[in-house]
Amino acid sequence: MKELNIGLCGLGTVGSGVFDVLSSNSRIMFEKSLCEINIVHIATRSDNHKCDVGDVQYSKDVFQVAKDPNVDLVVELIGGTDVAFELVMLAISNKKHVVTANKALIAESGSIILEAARNANVNVAFEASVGGGIPVLKSIREGLVANKINWLAGIINGTTNFILSEMSIKKTAFGVVLTEAQSKGYAEADPTFDVEGVDAAQKLAILASLSFGIPLSVSEFFVEGVTNILLEDITFAKELGFTVKHIGICRETNGSLEARVHPALIPYSSLLAHVNGVSNAVMVNSDAADTTLFYGPGAGSKATASSVIADIIDVAKAPESPCFSSLGYPIDRLKRKDIINIEDIDCGFYIRFIARDKAGVLSELTTTMAEASVSIESIIQRDHASKIDHVNVVIQTNKIKYSALDPVLKKIKKLENVLDDIVLIRVENLDQ
Amino acid sequence: MKELNIGLCGLGTVGSGVFDVLSSNSRIMFEKSLCEINIVHIATRSDNHKCDVGDVQYSKDVFQVAKDPNVDLVVELIGGTDVAFELVMLAISNKKHVVTANKALIAESGSIILEAARNANVNVAFEASVGGGIPVLKSIREGLVANKINWLAGIINGTTNFILSEMSIKKTAFGVVLTEAQSKGYAEADPTFDVEGVDAAQKLAILASLSFGIPLSVSEFFVEGVTNILLEDITFAKELGFTVKHIGICRETNGSLEARVHPALIPYSSLLAHVNGVSNAVMVNSDAADTTLFYGPGAGSKATASSVIADIIDVAKAPESPCFSSLGYPIDRLKRKDIINIEDIDCGFYIRFIARDKAGVLSELTTTMAEASVSIESIIQRDHASKIDHVNVVIQTNKIKYSALDPVLKKIKKLENVLDDIVLIRVENLDQ
Repeated sequence: MKELNIGLCGLGTVGSGVFDVLSSNSRIMFEKSLCEINIVHIATRSDNHKCDVGDVQYSKDVFQVAKDPNVDLVVELIGGTDVAFELVMLAISNKKHVVTANKALIAESGSIILEAARNANVNVAFEASVGGGIPVLKSIREGLVANKINWLAGIINGTTNFILSEMSIKKTAFGVVLTEAQSKGYAEADPTFDVEGVDAAQKLAILASLSFGIPLSVSEFFVEGVTNILLEDITFAKELGFTVKHIGICRETNGSLEARVHPALIPYSSLLAHVNGVSNAVMVNSDAADTTLFYGPGAGSKATASSVIADIIDVAKAPESPCFSSLGYPIDRLKRKDIINIEDIDCGFYIRFIARDKAGVLSELTTTMAEASVSIESIIQRDHASKIDHVNVVIQTNKIKYSALDPVLKKIKKLENVLDDIVLIRVENLDQ
Repeated sequence: MKELNIGLCGLGTVGSGVFDVLSSNSRIMFEKSLCEINIVHIATRSDNHKCDVGDVQYSKDVFQVAKDPNVDLVVELIGGTDVAFELVMLAISNKKHVVTANKALIAESGSIILEAARNANVNVAFEASVGGGIPVLKSIREGLVANKINWLAGIINGTTNFILSEMSIKKTAFGVVLTEAQSKGYAEADPTFDVEGVDAAQKLAILASLSFGIPLSVSEFFVEGVTNILLEDITFAKELGFTVKHIGICRETNGSLEARVHPALIPYSSLLAHVNGVSNAVMVNSDAADTTLFYGPGAGSKATASSVIADIIDVAKAPESPCFSSLGYPIDRLKRKDIINIEDIDCGFYIRFIARDKAGVLSELTTTMAEASVSIESIIQRDHASKIDHVNVVIQTNKIKYSALDPVLKKIKKLENVLDDIVLIRVENLDQ
């Protein structure tokens, strides 16, 4: 039997989930792992929590936990990046292991934290930082350890996936669904962080570091949110055999990396197209295991707690194996790779604009595209819902660099019969 | 850096994959794990292999590997259950770790093998025995360690999934697709083992032991293959919003277990319905993480090798942690649970039969069912493709025990206007 004393910092959504699951499932966890996990110290900065901490030592100063000689492992669930960073660094300097669900902290300061952990010979684990209850980091790090990863594509933000799924299923506009998501607790009062892709980019930084052995950083990632996605584009995409998803993609090409977060058309033939609601899924393509996918709840109190506790038990089982390799690669073996500029990445594009319904418009368009060697996969022309004598023109291109497409789009905009702005969404077939 | 010397027994499909991936990816594996895996002994019982073993010691007697003092870990990839069992037991008695992809061996003799491993304080790992390249055993064992598993449902046989997918997509009959599968190498010359569900039952036994802490055994499982699935049933299922899949299901109810392998109608709203071709996927519902799914290639040389090597590296990283808990639970903590008789399990049913196209037939049927309190979810009546004046009647029931449905089916069979046999397929909504 192995025993581990933990200190729990934070009793918010995730912290209370950890407290509850550790209490309710302690017997079954022990049966499986022969590890006994004792909560010996709890700290919260506010009194506003619902857990009955009983006679466990309780502090209002989270740093007390990191200083407590009885604590072997500090669970950081206070969120934010300032106090959380200080807390984690103090815990490490006191030779305590750390488990956290804090993606922002790891994406921003993971390199410093993991370097400190290596020097102190302690573990820092953060399964819950990506994909909530899905053991996706473990699967990539350990399950696919024999593989060179070619690419990964993930639905890693539950809020945007809920919004896009609901728009598609209920045929409702973005704003309406966002309000619904807020009332259900799936979106924050200020949803910027989620809908603009910041949260997904932080998670992608962790997945990219783990999968491609690069240092943690989002600074060069291309990030685009979902606020401009219109219901009509979801409908046209469906007609073309696609669904619109907000995804994070990382792909290695000749030693350089694509790293981007944006809405994309995903074909129905891909499992990712069928991941709906607040669920998350990460698809990984690697040289031996080919295409694997890991699916589950992207957030939630108990689901996230499941991953936090899995990390705790991993440490309890082998505390002597410092996993500063939580990143897949030991921290000192991470190597920077060039991030390919979004303009230079080959992909298909969905293009929509409104044109006057006149003879010759399509011929003018296709000629313009042919002259620039833009190859068209599909083209749809439909009467505009409200503008009489106008049509929606939808074009799906084959793979092309944005830098090559852009001049064509500029030419199209100048065509006499083309109105308004051009809608542009990338198409990802995920087939290689 | 950690070093592990392995002996490789078997260079067939999986063995050659292990040899190739270990050779081609040795640098990347070392970068990730800081473990060096050396193949120091290879044995094959036939000369018929394509690997250039170079100057690695080579034997035609696999037992030489289990006796070799230089070997720390024996990789059993010879298949079968007789010699393989002796080989594994000899390796264990010589204090060597064992990694195997042999589901039949583990399902049949896993308890004896794991008990011996516990006594010898060595590891026995078998990730590749279920779901080929998918790290599904690790995910359940470690990623979901904090959870009580409620149920799992898996597409765990690539051959039957390929056959059912192709029947559905290409609208082709079973026999035609089976021949195609054989020519592509997706089905054996004698496909009995796969199409009758034996292979899936063995994998389900491993998943069940891992998830519910029961001893390994298939003896009480209900097993039904796919040989009776007709194209028209796939078509009617589609009309009802379902796809027909061959699945293994295990569910705990009041301390007893359902354990069954059979074709089932899966709703399109479930991710499992979209797992096509030779791919596998296991869906797990647990109390904290809720519903997770693990998807990937169910077989194949390199995909299976990926899992074999992941096991090897796990042992290399922590050889001192004997994982006779490869089963999720330590072998001495496994507890038998009652397996519920298939007749007593509640589920929905898809029922189809041919009736004469006469007024009053439907009313007669629905009255018969109502009298027996069988609740109908949907009913379809369609002209029979070849029999004039006959119709196909398709009924989807709500959940009911087979023992309660059976007398109704007998009554229906006796109705004057009902002909031929009744087709019966279970419906699994996987919604709780």
